[in-house]
Amino acid sequence: MEYKILGKSDLTPQAIASLSAKDREELCAELRDKILNTVSANGGHLASNLGVVELTVALLSVFDYTKDKIVFDVGHQSYSYKLLTGRYDKFDTLRKKGGVSGFPRISESPYDAFDTGHSSTSISAAIGMARARDLKKEDNYVVAVIGDGALTGGLAYEAINDLGHSKTRMIVILNDNEMSIDRNVGGLSRYLSKLRVSSGYISAKRTTEGFLKKLGWFGRGIIKIILAIKDFFRFLLYRKKPSIFEDLGLNYYGPVDGHNTEDIIEALNAVKDIKDPMLIHVITKKGKGYAPAENNPADYHGVGAFDLETGVTKNGKCSYTTAFAGALEELAEKNPKVVAISAAMAQGTGLDHYSMRFPTRFFDCGIAEEHCVTMAGGLAVSGFVPVVAIYSSFLQRAYDEMITDVCFMNNHVVFSIDRAGFVGQDGHTHHGLLDLSYLNSMVNMTLFAPRDYKDLRNCLDYAVNTCTGPVAIRYPRGSSPFEAEGPLYELPEDCIKPHLASSKGYDFVIISVGRICEEAEKACVLLADEGINGTHINLSLVKPVPAKEIVELLGDTKNVFTLEEGILSGGVGEDIHVQLNRIGWNYNVISIAVENPVIKASSPEDQIRTAGLDGESVAARIKNSLGR
Amino acid sequence: MEYKILGKSDLTPQAIASLSAKDREELCAELRDKILNTVSANGGHLASNLGVVELTVALLSVFDYTKDKIVFDVGHQSYSYKLLTGRYDKFDTLRKKGGVSGFPRISESPYDAFDTGHSSTSISAAIGMARARDLKKEDNYVVAVIGDGALTGGLAYEAINDLGHSKTRMIVILNDNEMSIDRNVGGLSRYLSKLRVSSGYISAKRTTEGFLKKLGWFGRGIIKIILAIKDFFRFLLYRKKPSIFEDLGLNYYGPVDGHNTEDIIEALNAVKDIKDPMLIHVITKKGKGYAPAENNPADYHGVGAFDLETGVTKNGKCSYTTAFAGALEELAEKNPKVVAISAAMAQGTGLDHYSMRFPTRFFDCGIAEEHCVTMAGGLAVSGFVPVVAIYSSFLQRAYDEMITDVCFMNNHVVFSIDRAGFVGQDGHTHHGLLDLSYLNSMVNMTLFAPRDYKDLRNCLDYAVNTCTGPVAIRYPRGSSPFEAEGPLYELPEDCIKPHLASSKGYDFVIISVGRICEEAEKACVLLADEGINGTHINLSLVKPVPAKEIVELLGDTKNVFTLEEGILSGGVGEDIHVQLNRIGWNYNVISIAVENPVIKASSPEDQIRTAGLDGESVAARIKNSLGR
Repeated sequence: MEYKILGKSDLTPQAIASLSAKDREELCAELRDKILNTVSANGGHLASNLGVVELTVALLSVFDYTKDKIVFDVGHQSYSYKLLTGRYDKFDTLRKKGGVSGFPRISESPYDAFDTGHSSTSISAAIGMARARDLKKEDNYVVAVIGDGALTGGLAYEAINDLGHSKTRMIVILNDNEMSIDRNVGGLSRYLSKLRVSSGYISAKRTTEGFLKKLGWFGRGIIKIILAIKDFFRFLLYRKKPSIFEDLGLNYYGPVDGHNTEDIIEALNAVKDIKDPMLIHVITKKGKGYAPAENNPADYHGVGAFDLETGVTKNGKCSYTTAFAGALEELAEKNPKVVAISAAMAQGTGLDHYSMRFPTRFFDCGIAEEHCVTMAGGLAVSGFVPVVAIYSSFLQRAYDEMITDVCFMNNHVVFSIDRAGFVGQDGHTHHGLLDLSYLNSMVNMTLFAPRDYKDLRNCLDYAVNTCTGPVAIRYPRGSSPFEAEGPLYELPEDCIKPHLASSKGYDFVIISVGRICEEAEKACVLLADEGINGTHINLSLVKPVPAKEIVELLGDTKNVFTLEEGILSGGVGEDIHVQLNRIGWNYNVISIAVENPVIKASSPEDQIRTAGLDGESVAARIKNSLGR
Repeated sequence: MEYKILGKSDLTPQAIASLSAKDREELCAELRDKILNTVSANGGHLASNLGVVELTVALLSVFDYTKDKIVFDVGHQSYSYKLLTGRYDKFDTLRKKGGVSGFPRISESPYDAFDTGHSSTSISAAIGMARARDLKKEDNYVVAVIGDGALTGGLAYEAINDLGHSKTRMIVILNDNEMSIDRNVGGLSRYLSKLRVSSGYISAKRTTEGFLKKLGWFGRGIIKIILAIKDFFRFLLYRKKPSIFEDLGLNYYGPVDGHNTEDIIEALNAVKDIKDPMLIHVITKKGKGYAPAENNPADYHGVGAFDLETGVTKNGKCSYTTAFAGALEELAEKNPKVVAISAAMAQGTGLDHYSMRFPTRFFDCGIAEEHCVTMAGGLAVSGFVPVVAIYSSFLQRAYDEMITDVCFMNNHVVFSIDRAGFVGQDGHTHHGLLDLSYLNSMVNMTLFAPRDYKDLRNCLDYAVNTCTGPVAIRYPRGSSPFEAEGPLYELPEDCIKPHLASSKGYDFVIISVGRICEEAEKACVLLADEGINGTHINLSLVKPVPAKEIVELLGDTKNVFTLEEGILSGGVGEDIHVQLNRIGWNYNVISIAVENPVIKASSPEDQIRTAGLDGESVAARIKNSLGR
């Protein structure tokens, strides 16, 4: 589709800045259209991007993207920015292999200021840029755009605390849409509601404007006169008010209607040259302009391809997530000590239904992974069994708390780690490739990587009812490929044993971990076709490695390969090498694992291939190592 | 020394609660005396403990330590609590092997509610305990005691945000002493100053009391009358005031004079049964009652044994810390792109002198490790070379930020990691045993573990001036044992090569990492005495492992041992095994490293022995493995 403004080759900073108000309105409509069409075809983050169209146009009307730095927190709202800063032509490749990333990437464009993906980093990164500017005695603007959800993360608070003290000149845009991925929680969220309501600014302004417009040319004349007395107008509308941000040393300005481009431009112009840190409170609506997304923003946070007419339909397909959630509800039903904890991800982790069934035994702590884990430690020392459900890459935030507040005390906390392994289109910032490594290094930790739904249910049962210290269960995004063939073992208590997946001979043994079992088995089949016959063992329990039981399954081969969907360093393969050699055998253990985790957006299958973990690559590696 | 009250075998909760005000005053004096005598003999945390004597006596006068839960943030202020809850008799063993820990430990006493050591965890842990209490329908009190320094950590904010929203009944004591270990920074700190000053409560109260006392019996009569009208009195003194904490949903109460036990008791009684979360703002003075510590609290934060008469004298001895600091200043002098970042630890990391020499190129971000790292990412993408100096175990807090905000973008940030390896008397929460493992798993990271001061200077120079991506340099607490014998190599650029420490033969090769070189060499000498002659290689660069250069030094032996002061899982030894086997040799690599990091307070030498990393243990292990 051809647009009137968007995609014009001369869309320089100057061109954007010189657009008329009417053209800006048109541009916003075009951006929305482009985003809706692209996301409904490719999948992606919809609600957040529809919410910041006007904000982005306003930012680029005031700031020069070739000099000024705009850091988008999380970055899942950067589509409009990308479309206006040189990526319109290839935007159809959004989130595809080799295409435009769904997040800001400095490797993609010189106009992306910082790579984002994890929450609450923007203010810190922007402070660094602002300090660098001041040291270089340059004068560009630095802007952090952060949602009220991301503001519940402790990192953002640490940054505001520093900013309010150091008085570094920069602008924080608080994009207040009352949502994380789920509805926000937290004292700050309540406070922002009060700030919105008490000011009454936006509704008052709208009422007045509506009233004046009804007056016809006379009213419009009055508007013009008022607009002319800009200082007075600003004083009335955005006067400095006491607020929590003022308490912390930032100048607060707002709230501003985030869907009125002209208002935002006016606010930005009013504050941009003030030498102190400024916070502009902008009120937006997630999903703005697409009714289904406005009404159910959580359903339109991250979506696959869908029909714009009918909207997203839930597929109701089983997944590791739903298997976990169902199993947890059963366990909670029987064991009153079970409580569940989420970091603003009840829906993503499958806990939304649990939270309705067991409301007093569910705690959503906001985007606050660290607090979730330490709080779980407090529950555990008090006799409860907290199940902390957090995505693998986000749990990295709580690395220290897992060690000091859970593992050192041997607290019985269960970590349900979703999105372990490759995650597909979100790309490398969201892969869960480090968990096997960091969990392996944690004292007292028991670690499971179940292969299929049944296995996951068994591991969770064992973790809750049999273990007495910290346990982690990591499982991938999406659906299990094993439902047709069924589980590898029958007795639930056997989840801690190695499981024989197949045995054609003892030319080699391959030990696979969790879901990647599928690729190991493919490798065995491919090699058997060439007369190389191996045995395939799958592990659910990977820490402590059931080394003795593995040895019993090794036959007389010395050639052991391991396959895991995680980083090589510190992974299960390295541990198996150490443990097998302790038993006194001289095994040649070769670990096949991810060596470089920076594998960009694509399908998980393709990412597995890129990492060399697919059946063909594994077969080739084994063949080569055996000298065959 | 015999005390009148302290140490009495009948110091039950009831006994403490029924003390008279005069006895409480006496008890405080006795606690101070005991703490001063013990810490001056054993070393320990002095200033923080002297600051909370009255607060602790007040807490134990109001709460029953056998039922109620008091969580001390960081825990380095828990000495009075320990003395009053059953550990008086063995308090002389403070921080000694097998003795009383310098931090709360649930394994030490049922009255220690939670293990602490790292900052900002107390509110989260206490929320967990309060929620557990509510689920169990019990009615005990839960109290978190947190300093204003620890309140700059994002984790504490995440907890307050949750608490203000969920309205869980518990008490937060804000122990406001205007200090972290160094003087506090941050917008919150400024804000607290205002809160103290604007209320003018304490000085007003003292003035009034002084005035009334001057009136003789009549004045004292008036005081009694006023005290009788308690509700009125409280209303005047501690009336609810708008504050940042109120904004976040906590009820604020204070400020209260933290050295007036009776005032604190009154405040605690006033709020303890309110069903909402309460924050009591208590003003204390670090080092209270010992003039040298009052005047220089940072010097009396953590101290070795010292003479109470003369106070702590700085030994001026060289250490890895001072070697780093001196080298950094030289580099910063020559390279204007170098900037330094500290997380409230300018003194501990040696940066205090740097901060005075290069004030515009030094950023102390408060107890905010995450923010320090992400901010460094922002500086790095803007062309600066930030050197982030954080202790090994505290840097664990920024694990995720190191990955996503530094490593993924290949940002040139230098991490100077002090207190790597065993730290001695602070015990297991403070050991730096995980860094080699977690740094090894980070993409693009270059990792050095220098052996001696010269080596450290060379590595830092290389990191700043030659590297272009993330670099980490980890070095231990204390002094180098190698200054007499000098460095292992001469040319600075050789820091990236393996260094031959000694070569007596090729029965085996041992590869040591950094400072633990000393123990590897001892092992070689011991084994040579028995006719087992080995070669000893020391590595400074451990990632990427210089595998080819190592192979050149291996002679024709297949028996390779590695020795590192870090956790086995994911450590350098495992990586050496993988890398050597890639070169195509069938080496037997046995990694000697820490298997269980929970090694409690003792001397570092003893901890090294406990972990089996000392020369004798290493020699025995090698001998055994060689079947000799």
